[in-house]
Amino acid sequence: MEGRKMFDEKLSRRGLIKTIGIGGLAMAASGGLGLLSNVEGAGKRPSKLPWPYKKLSDAEIKRAGEIAYDSWFRGFCAYATLSGIVKTLSEKVGGPYKTFPMEAIMFAHGGTAGWGGTCGTLIGAGIGASLASGHKDAEDITNEVNYYYADTALPTFVPAKAIAYKDLKATSTANSILCHISVGKWMKAEGIAEDKGPEGVGFLSPQQMDRCARMAANMAMKTLEFLNQWKDGKFEAKHQAPSLANHITSQNNCSDCHGDKVPAPGPFGSGVGILKGRFGVGL
Amino acid sequence: MEGRKMFDEKLSRRGLIKTIGIGGLAMAASGGLGLLSNVEGAGKRPSKLPWPYKKLSDAEIKRAGEIAYDSWFRGFCAYATLSGIVKTLSEKVGGPYKTFPMEAIMFAHGGTAGWGGTCGTLIGAGIGASLASGHKDAEDITNEVNYYYADTALPTFVPAKAIAYKDLKATSTANSILCHISVGKWMKAEGIAEDKGPEGVGFLSPQQMDRCARMAANMAMKTLEFLNQWKDGKFEAKHQAPSLANHITSQNNCSDCHGDKVPAPGPFGSGVGILKGRFGVGL
Repeated sequence: MEGRKMFDEKLSRRGLIKTIGIGGLAMAASGGLGLLSNVEGAGKRPSKLPWPYKKLSDAEIKRAGEIAYDSWFRGFCAYATLSGIVKTLSEKVGGPYKTFPMEAIMFAHGGTAGWGGTCGTLIGAGIGASLASGHKDAEDITNEVNYYYADTALPTFVPAKAIAYKDLKATSTANSILCHISVGKWMKAEGIAEDKGPEGVGFLSPQQMDRCARMAANMAMKTLEFLNQWKDGKFEAKHQAPSLANHITSQNNCSDCHGDKVPAPGPFGSGVGILKGRFGVGL
Repeated sequence: MEGRKMFDEKLSRRGLIKTIGIGGLAMAASGGLGLLSNVEGAGKRPSKLPWPYKKLSDAEIKRAGEIAYDSWFRGFCAYATLSGIVKTLSEKVGGPYKTFPMEAIMFAHGGTAGWGGTCGTLIGAGIGASLASGHKDAEDITNEVNYYYADTALPTFVPAKAIAYKDLKATSTANSILCHISVGKWMKAEGIAEDKGPEGVGFLSPQQMDRCARMAANMAMKTLEFLNQWKDGKFEAKHQAPSLANHITSQNNCSDCHGDKVPAPGPFGSGVGILKGRFGVGL
């Protein structure tokens, strides 16, 4: 484990992210593939992030939740959370937020075209955070939103007017960012996951749909709360990315799938030096 | 299971997607939240999809793979695959592709900020497909790209000039779209996942980095191949989304996590009727 320890000391998550950030800047500065550039390139080169951000009031954040909730029924979860963020900033800030093609993220619903992977609300949250704060800070914000999603009994959002089902009973803690696990645990908690229930329960029941719409609202609101803190210079990245603790991209719910046979962390490679060599930056 | 059977007959994946699609159109037509609109709204409303697409030659698709491969080392997997698609279409088609803020998707690396969820290459692929074909067709394309990712021994892409590691030995079949499972299986196949290997193996080793960069290339190229077929009216959605077979958002690798205790599919809810009521469209 000596190599791993050395790497732990050498490499912090912030260090890694910093590398990526600097890599992006280096690319822009050098021309590189020309994928990132500055505002003057608008119309010819990718729009440079972050776009402007203005702090939102509590009432505006609650309204963003309502927009996300409502939008779920128009394009499901990823689109819903992104709509809550971008529509709100379209009104508050205007500019580039008005033209972002949010339809491009609809496919990410249900853990990517319904495959149960990363919950679409977190993809919407990540893109929204990235537009408003740029990728380096958005990485930290997304990590904290992921932790909030995984560690909190949700949904807590209550819509002004329920669309699919008003009186949900349960909240549940997913311990995961995966749609499949998150929605499965919630359906059990709500008592609608039985194998032979009456029609109207189970997946795509009014209950589950309303729950997921509320999740979209919770994630849009939490992302905007973090962006407000970030705007004030008060956002704090409290958690280390689990991938650095586990030495592989991962969540923290190892036993959910591995049971009591959770593998020990493997070695941690020296590949980051390649980024260093490529961009000429230190870790 | 009577309700389930009825639902299977009533609801095809295409039917569900069609509902979403029509929902989007209904929203645009009615004003709704005004999130989708037409080209005339450019500058004031979200850019309407799809953007123009031109068929690519085999050489152009191979070059898109090289761009994706190279871009991995600038912003990791989601950004890499999206860059392969969008940079190629920026040159081939121009227009809106030139200004899309690709930086906004960097956070999705490693299964969303390194959490091991949906492989970032598939998020990049889905956005790229959505920009070029609109969300309805992109849903089908993404589902097929997901199947390709899960069911194929990968990576098969070989870069013109390797950046991190030239002579990779293994390919592996993930049976999953999750980063954690996919990269974990590959590292085992390559023989670099040992608990106490020398430095240079394991996660973030040159081998793993080069493998993931090649995966980004494979996904960019496959997405563009599907888009070429789509442009010719020859794209065929061959697979049903697993969520409809399993009655919950899911993959097809149930035993990977559930072992021999795979739950029977639960009931399938009647909630889609809410979308029907909301948008006035039939299934």
